[in-house]
Amino acid sequence: MSVLVVGSVAFDSIETPFGARREVVGGAATYFALAASCFAKVQVVGAVGEDFGPEHRAVLERRGIDLLGLERLAGRTFRWSGRYSYDLNSRETLDTQLGVFEKFDPRIPQPYREPRFLFLGNIDPVLQLSVLQQVKRPELVGCDTMNFWIEGKLEALKRTLAAVDMLVINDSEARELAREPNLVKAAAVIRALGPSTLIVKRGEFGAAAFGGAHPFAVPALLLDSVSDPTGAGDSFAGGLMGYLASRASDGPVDEAMLRRAIAMGSVLASFTVQSFGVEGLLDLTRERIDERYEEFRRLSHFHDA
Amino acid sequence: MSVLVVGSVAFDSIETPFGARREVVGGAATYFALAASCFAKVQVVGAVGEDFGPEHRAVLERRGIDLLGLERLAGRTFRWSGRYSYDLNSRETLDTQLGVFEKFDPRIPQPYREPRFLFLGNIDPVLQLSVLQQVKRPELVGCDTMNFWIEGKLEALKRTLAAVDMLVINDSEARELAREPNLVKAAAVIRALGPSTLIVKRGEFGAAAFGGAHPFAVPALLLDSVSDPTGAGDSFAGGLMGYLASRASDGPVDEAMLRRAIAMGSVLASFTVQSFGVEGLLDLTRERIDERYEEFRRLSHFHDA
Repeated sequence: MSVLVVGSVAFDSIETPFGARREVVGGAATYFALAASCFAKVQVVGAVGEDFGPEHRAVLERRGIDLLGLERLAGRTFRWSGRYSYDLNSRETLDTQLGVFEKFDPRIPQPYREPRFLFLGNIDPVLQLSVLQQVKRPELVGCDTMNFWIEGKLEALKRTLAAVDMLVINDSEARELAREPNLVKAAAVIRALGPSTLIVKRGEFGAAAFGGAHPFAVPALLLDSVSDPTGAGDSFAGGLMGYLASRASDGPVDEAMLRRAIAMGSVLASFTVQSFGVEGLLDLTRERIDERYEEFRRLSHFHDA
Repeated sequence: MSVLVVGSVAFDSIETPFGARREVVGGAATYFALAASCFAKVQVVGAVGEDFGPEHRAVLERRGIDLLGLERLAGRTFRWSGRYSYDLNSRETLDTQLGVFEKFDPRIPQPYREPRFLFLGNIDPVLQLSVLQQVKRPELVGCDTMNFWIEGKLEALKRTLAAVDMLVINDSEARELAREPNLVKAAAVIRALGPSTLIVKRGEFGAAAFGGAHPFAVPALLLDSVSDPTGAGDSFAGGLMGYLASRASDGPVDEAMLRRAIAMGSVLASFTVQSFGVEGLLDLTRERIDERYEEFRRLSHFHDA
């Protein structure tokens, strides 16, 4: 089963206390697609500039990712550069150049118009809705957003949320969207806006999910070396959606399946942060993923008192 | 099996967005003792002033806590007052009056001198070591500390750490003590100072532990109502040590037992934060604790991929 993702493809320049990379292939859709590709076929809808050459496309194509929907427009590819603090818990954006991304108006190619799994990356909610209008209603629609849209396009965002099944956002953004500091109450507010499932990303503290009969929460894997947190959240979402797509033949997504998918998302994010940029995702095998999944279960399980 | 705790007993004045309390019985040893009393007999060594009357002692005595070691000194009881931010994630200390706590020099009464489980609350590390010198070496010595001692009495703290089995501290303080932002590396540095087990308190994000063959991490319970975070960490430590003491007849503490104890500590902390001050601990039954423990397992477990 395949996953369709719509979002940014970019050149990132990253500085952390452990090193730096200049203009490497990044962007939310890139991390998502590479992580999801460990489990399922992935189709990408995005826009790049004339400076995005075959060597850049190859980063994704080598993992079997379908780039039919990656438009090449006149101009330059979206560029982001940022620097992380000594403990990696905060970052400063040094420069953002939207380039062709400013004019991005996603067009879904004919062969992509009946996706069973669709993920609307963190772009203008008006564009997210436009994507939904171009496809047959998928089995599962996931969606990301951020404070910029919560603060600047709340009404459009609410229209998008009314049409999706699952929102995957950061802890602080969930509280901001709901205007409610308590996460459990915030989850109820957000689910009333549309998405039956809310998944909350908590960075180095893991993730939480609301939607089944019982809430779910996991810590993050404890890693003795973290090089670069860029793309962790997008890798998490990609691992999660990719895993769900790979299990689609098992029937509708139930609570146990969603929990396993969140754990898989956590595993994929852990590989991302151990290396720079997307490097940690490029050579992943299912065997290494499954090993780390077992490590994650060992990390967090306890038994009868 | 009983637990001996040495630490502060205080009058707390607390303001949160959900209410306020004036001069209620608090202090680290109080929260610890009340939480531990759900599982085991508890003995308290501390100091209070002449203003600490029978009605205040009764808060602890009603839970069967032994106050033979609670000295009554000339002067006033330690007073702390603080105010929490709207999301409860930060607090401002409004006033601290040490009172008799300034002269506190713990003397262990004769009947307490062979404790099997000892917890050294967050006091001057010189006093923590003095306590250890007054007792027969316990089976398990736990210890708390804070940035004030890390910054002001590091050499004394290192002497204490060299003599304890388990350090229970906040996430940021673990990193500060080790001078290492990565928690896994910080844990190795701290364990090399003495304690074979490090338990890291992460507030609303749960806890982590290093010491067994595998690291351990849990989220915190997700609560739809948090009234007052005061004493959460001390309740966590009390639940943990009390549970271990209650299972002492099962043999030495192994990894599985430690995990269950950390989960029990998390459960006790969750009851504390749902009410003001110590109120959430006063009427706890083992049945309610065990129910919430099962809820905690449901919260955080996932299965084979």
